Amino acid sequence: MPRNLDGLLFPHSVAVVGATPVSGKIGHAVMANVQSFPGPVFAVNPKYSEVLGRPCFPSIPDLPEPVDLAVIVIPAEGVREVLRQCGEKGIKNAVIISAGFKEAGLEGAQRERELVRIANEYELNVLGPNVLGLISTRVGLNATFAPRGALPGSIAFMSQSGAFCTSVLDWAWKEKLGFSHFVSLGNKAVLDECDFLWAFANDPETKAIVGYLEGIRDGARFMTIAREITQAKPIVILKAGRAEAGARAVSSHTGTMAGADHAYDAAFRQCGIIRARTVEELFDFAYILSHQPLPKGRRIGIVTNAGGAGVMAADAAEWEGLEVARLREETLQALAQTVPEEAAIYNPVDVVGHATLEQYQAALELVLADPGVDLAVALSAPHPILKFSDLARVARTAQEKAGKPMAVSFMAGELGEEAEEILRSAGIPSFFDPARAVRAVATLVKYTGIRNRPRSPAEELPADRGKAREILSEARRKRRVRLGLETMELLTAYGIPCARGRVAKTAEEAGRIAQEIGQPVAIKILSPELTHKTEVGGVRLGVPPENADRVAWELMAGLRRRFPEATIDGVYVQEMLPPGREVILGMVRDPTFGPLLMFGLGGIYVEVLRDVAFAVAPLSRAEAEELVSLIRGKKWLYGVRGQPPVDVASLVDLILRVGQLAVDNPEILELDLNPILCYPERVVAVDVRLTVSEEGA
Amino acid sequence: MPRNLDGLLFPHSVAVVGATPVSGKIGHAVMANVQSFPGPVFAVNPKYSEVLGRPCFPSIPDLPEPVDLAVIVIPAEGVREVLRQCGEKGIKNAVIISAGFKEAGLEGAQRERELVRIANEYELNVLGPNVLGLISTRVGLNATFAPRGALPGSIAFMSQSGAFCTSVLDWAWKEKLGFSHFVSLGNKAVLDECDFLWAFANDPETKAIVGYLEGIRDGARFMTIAREITQAKPIVILKAGRAEAGARAVSSHTGTMAGADHAYDAAFRQCGIIRARTVEELFDFAYILSHQPLPKGRRIGIVTNAGGAGVMAADAAEWEGLEVARLREETLQALAQTVPEEAAIYNPVDVVGHATLEQYQAALELVLADPGVDLAVALSAPHPILKFSDLARVARTAQEKAGKPMAVSFMAGELGEEAEEILRSAGIPSFFDPARAVRAVATLVKYTGIRNRPRSPAEELPADRGKAREILSEARRKRRVRLGLETMELLTAYGIPCARGRVAKTAEEAGRIAQEIGQPVAIKILSPELTHKTEVGGVRLGVPPENADRVAWELMAGLRRRFPEATIDGVYVQEMLPPGREVILGMVRDPTFGPLLMFGLGGIYVEVLRDVAFAVAPLSRAEAEELVSLIRGKKWLYGVRGQPPVDVASLVDLILRVGQLAVDNPEILELDLNPILCYPERVVAVDVRLTVSEEGA
Repeated sequence: MPRNLDGLLFPHSVAVVGATPVSGKIGHAVMANVQSFPGPVFAVNPKYSEVLGRPCFPSIPDLPEPVDLAVIVIPAEGVREVLRQCGEKGIKNAVIISAGFKEAGLEGAQRERELVRIANEYELNVLGPNVLGLISTRVGLNATFAPRGALPGSIAFMSQSGAFCTSVLDWAWKEKLGFSHFVSLGNKAVLDECDFLWAFANDPETKAIVGYLEGIRDGARFMTIAREITQAKPIVILKAGRAEAGARAVSSHTGTMAGADHAYDAAFRQCGIIRARTVEELFDFAYILSHQPLPKGRRIGIVTNAGGAGVMAADAAEWEGLEVARLREETLQALAQTVPEEAAIYNPVDVVGHATLEQYQAALELVLADPGVDLAVALSAPHPILKFSDLARVARTAQEKAGKPMAVSFMAGELGEEAEEILRSAGIPSFFDPARAVRAVATLVKYTGIRNRPRSPAEELPADRGKAREILSEARRKRRVRLGLETMELLTAYGIPCARGRVAKTAEEAGRIAQEIGQPVAIKILSPELTHKTEVGGVRLGVPPENADRVAWELMAGLRRRFPEATIDGVYVQEMLPPGREVILGMVRDPTFGPLLMFGLGGIYVEVLRDVAFAVAPLSRAEAEELVSLIRGKKWLYGVRGQPPVDVASLVDLILRVGQLAVDNPEILELDLNPILCYPERVVAVDVRLTVSEEGA
Repeated sequence: MPRNLDGLLFPHSVAVVGATPVSGKIGHAVMANVQSFPGPVFAVNPKYSEVLGRPCFPSIPDLPEPVDLAVIVIPAEGVREVLRQCGEKGIKNAVIISAGFKEAGLEGAQRERELVRIANEYELNVLGPNVLGLISTRVGLNATFAPRGALPGSIAFMSQSGAFCTSVLDWAWKEKLGFSHFVSLGNKAVLDECDFLWAFANDPETKAIVGYLEGIRDGARFMTIAREITQAKPIVILKAGRAEAGARAVSSHTGTMAGADHAYDAAFRQCGIIRARTVEELFDFAYILSHQPLPKGRRIGIVTNAGGAGVMAADAAEWEGLEVARLREETLQALAQTVPEEAAIYNPVDVVGHATLEQYQAALELVLADPGVDLAVALSAPHPILKFSDLARVARTAQEKAGKPMAVSFMAGELGEEAEEILRSAGIPSFFDPARAVRAVATLVKYTGIRNRPRSPAEELPADRGKAREILSEARRKRRVRLGLETMELLTAYGIPCARGRVAKTAEEAGRIAQEIGQPVAIKILSPELTHKTEVGGVRLGVPPENADRVAWELMAGLRRRFPEATIDGVYVQEMLPPGREVILGMVRDPTFGPLLMFGLGGIYVEVLRDVAFAVAPLSRAEAEELVSLIRGKKWLYGVRGQPPVDVASLVDLILRVGQLAVDNPEILELDLNPILCYPERVVAVDVRLTVSEEGA
């Protein structure tokens, strides 16, 4: 159930606990910033009766009324008591700026746990502790100790780093970038990124949600919420800490290859979150997403009066995945009649340096009006005749008329400053670098793709769950943590197609199973120590059924001789399959998001080329299809050089089933199906390795 | 022979032909800009006796002395005559600003050819036509019509786009970025990028060379010059026009995959040119390369007082290929004694928000002094106590003491403006975005790698060139343009190891050849139309010598029946080779750089994964080795999973020989060796396809 944060983000009255008239103290900075709040403001501090012209009360119980929001700026030791007083007084929302909690060792962590208990007891919305504070320009509240406030705007921002908040405020002030909400998340003791995602999504004045995160508290909840929000409102996140993977026991292919960052990449992709790599991208993306309309397609029109700028924009369009629009005949004719003779009328349209303002305007409007153009960039260079401010007005008018998204690069320094103002007031992003303008509009295309992508609900697939649990319990009862072919039944219980085969404890049994299979078989050693069966010579292929007992005997005897320390449990007798295209599907548990699937081509592709892609389970059919399409070598599956495609539908089904297996059975820590053989009419898992946890999940 | 451009770039006297007192005209703008030149300046214009206070003469012959440099700003029709007058007068250098030449149709192109003739006749250094002009801050000359001049500095800049020149000047003025030389290249009728590369390289005050290019006139000359220069001075180029590939007949694998941009990428890499993708990168890279010392290695130290900034920098370090330095024990101990208790002393070193200036300074100096740190970034966020200007001074001092390269990100807006000034005067780059600071220092590491990389002269390999020309002439005599296995001898003539085999015109001959080979053979159809031999069933493998005549007969008869239109020239009888790791080596002719080699893994790797790399021939042994190492799947060749490595030395030798073959025989338009089988002890080319030009080269 999402929390209602209206009292926190849109309060009508505020108390500052720890307010002080002593300048240089945080309690003073907060009080000074809160001064501009139009509603009632109370100071709370036993030392004063008035602070900065506001009435001051000794303590929360003394307040004349229960305010909507308490901002707490006192030493850590006293916060607990104040929070309890808030609860008693009926104050439902608190921002705890004070530090000295989880970030400050064991004692602090204990203090933080107490805060959480109190918050739960009184059902309080608590932001923090250890935050810069929050700003809601929507109600004129700045409850931070930052030296800069925020301009009003349509971007909601949250950050796990308080220092980064102050940086962004100072920079945004210079860039005149505005915010609807500005939240420092701090220790996330009670409220976390999910609560604010939800609150921002429900604020109609917020057009884009922006976050700086170093971690996520509850990956599954985050994904559920974000998946829903991004259908209506863009989310852009800078997730820092790519190298945080840390120590983790790994024993599978998937384990070796899956870093923590793969999980974030996959989860963000699946939720439709746009990931920014740098601060510059974070706000370039957020600005255009909150100010420009979404395009219908990815065909870009480029209008310039400087050839070089047009070439740079066309290059950027290519690497950003845009298509340089092909103008229709009518547009070309109209352009030819308007622009100077030397102009290039094919997109990029270069009206050349001596074109007049009217000619530039006509060209830009013609290009934007072309039904084959979905979005545009308008470019220029400093010019002896044209003023950038006039060009800016022309760009604004053209954008308004066409209603299509646009960005501008006038490639100017000081000469372009007035133009910047005009464009900013029109919400048109403007950059020196044409490539950056193109990248900005490309973000709109990306988000349009996110809104329009096929969606299907995550499916709950039928499975013999009882059988699966039985197999896993048996393994754990035997204190086995690494399992192989003997668990093929586990896959079968989940409807995952497997090569026919059975475990044989003795050579005689192997012979009987081979006779039943009734065609040449593969005989594979079963030993928890000898997991690389092929490398140790533990596999015999193409054995006729009548020889199976002898071959099995020789295989076991030979390996017992060579590896006297190894436990030999018997052999696995399996039908021989014809050669097929090999893929691998694996799973590891990500600490944030849970079951992380890895899919890729098998054999040397996975080992040498690392051509793999990741997704978090449970996933929808559309997401499973996307997973297959993400690998570079996908053409090999879809058919190349006259080869028929493999049965991709069955492959997608298999991926969904493995996802279900991982979701249902948390004691499976790691899982590799390798290889899975793919044929035009079916797919078959041939081998499996998995690791289960030793204790009950 | 490189030209001496001293008179152009360091003139002692200047004449402006077309100077006018009429404001708004280009001849006025140029004259106004030239006013600041300290040496003698003459105006040339029959209409005036004085322009802007300078003596004005009716024509060049009337000048009292032969100036070093004539700047020509008159209509295109008159330029020819003026240039000839310059030649007669003994004026050796001219900048032709006038437009109306090659860029303006056939008549203009004819005019330009005449200029070239005159320039050659009088040995004139001519810049242009169709340029913005040039600036040499080294002698105080601004011979452009740009509204902005340039500040003095150590970056030499050249641009093929005049409009881009004006953009850069306006932007650089705002950013206070200085230049030693600033050259608009225009039509490059006489002087081109090579001439200026050379001149800039020889100017001791120029520390970095920067170019914006849309094309290169002479690829081979460019590579020779650039290879030499980059050993001493960095070159950064933004090459625009990535999508220019255009129409080109392609019939090979290599042809399908090699775009014009691959050639530029390869050539720049081989020459050690740093390629910038965007304008921002172009000047970020140039600035740090011209102001900071080069690091010894790639180990970065990160010092911050804001956790988030440190995390972002560490992320950026990872994706820029830097190593986050491991501080030595002494440094850690010293840090622990200096910084606040909550600080993180392991790199990234986070002195935390309440650290004093002295603590920040001590930490930065300790990290920079650590012998395990090669370069550093200093980070901060707006801070209640610390002033950015003080932090900037601390950074400057620390950098000076350690003599190691550094960049700064204080993540500030207006609050950081004074700090920016201090850092700029110290030549320390400063950015809002920590990732951008890291990317800047990473460029230094990249350039250090370029300076230190192994170099070897391009080798002239022995070959039976006569034999090769004979084979190619014979093919052209027969008007064959697409050739296959029948040209295996061509490879042999260049010492390229090939599978043993010979052409048989008849079945009987095939039998005899197979007997000579004396082991199972492959029999492959020879037909210029049936180039995909396997797909049409034109290959028989593992044929015992005694059956070779019968199999050859059946093969030819069968294909004659199925493809009555095809010419069947016979069969190729070749020794059967054991399975090996397959690679492909191809060549196409790039219009700028000539023979462009493509190397990659064979089979589905090349077709599905496009795991290929490019290099321009002729190449040195070091470059051939680099080519092999550039593919993603290189591990497969170097040995993986206990497989022995293939004979990489022989592979490198083969690449060098194919390069030589392509360089020596320009009539070979395209070439594919596919597959080349690689074994631990040798490599063998198994099949070849090539296209030769119809006319003599």
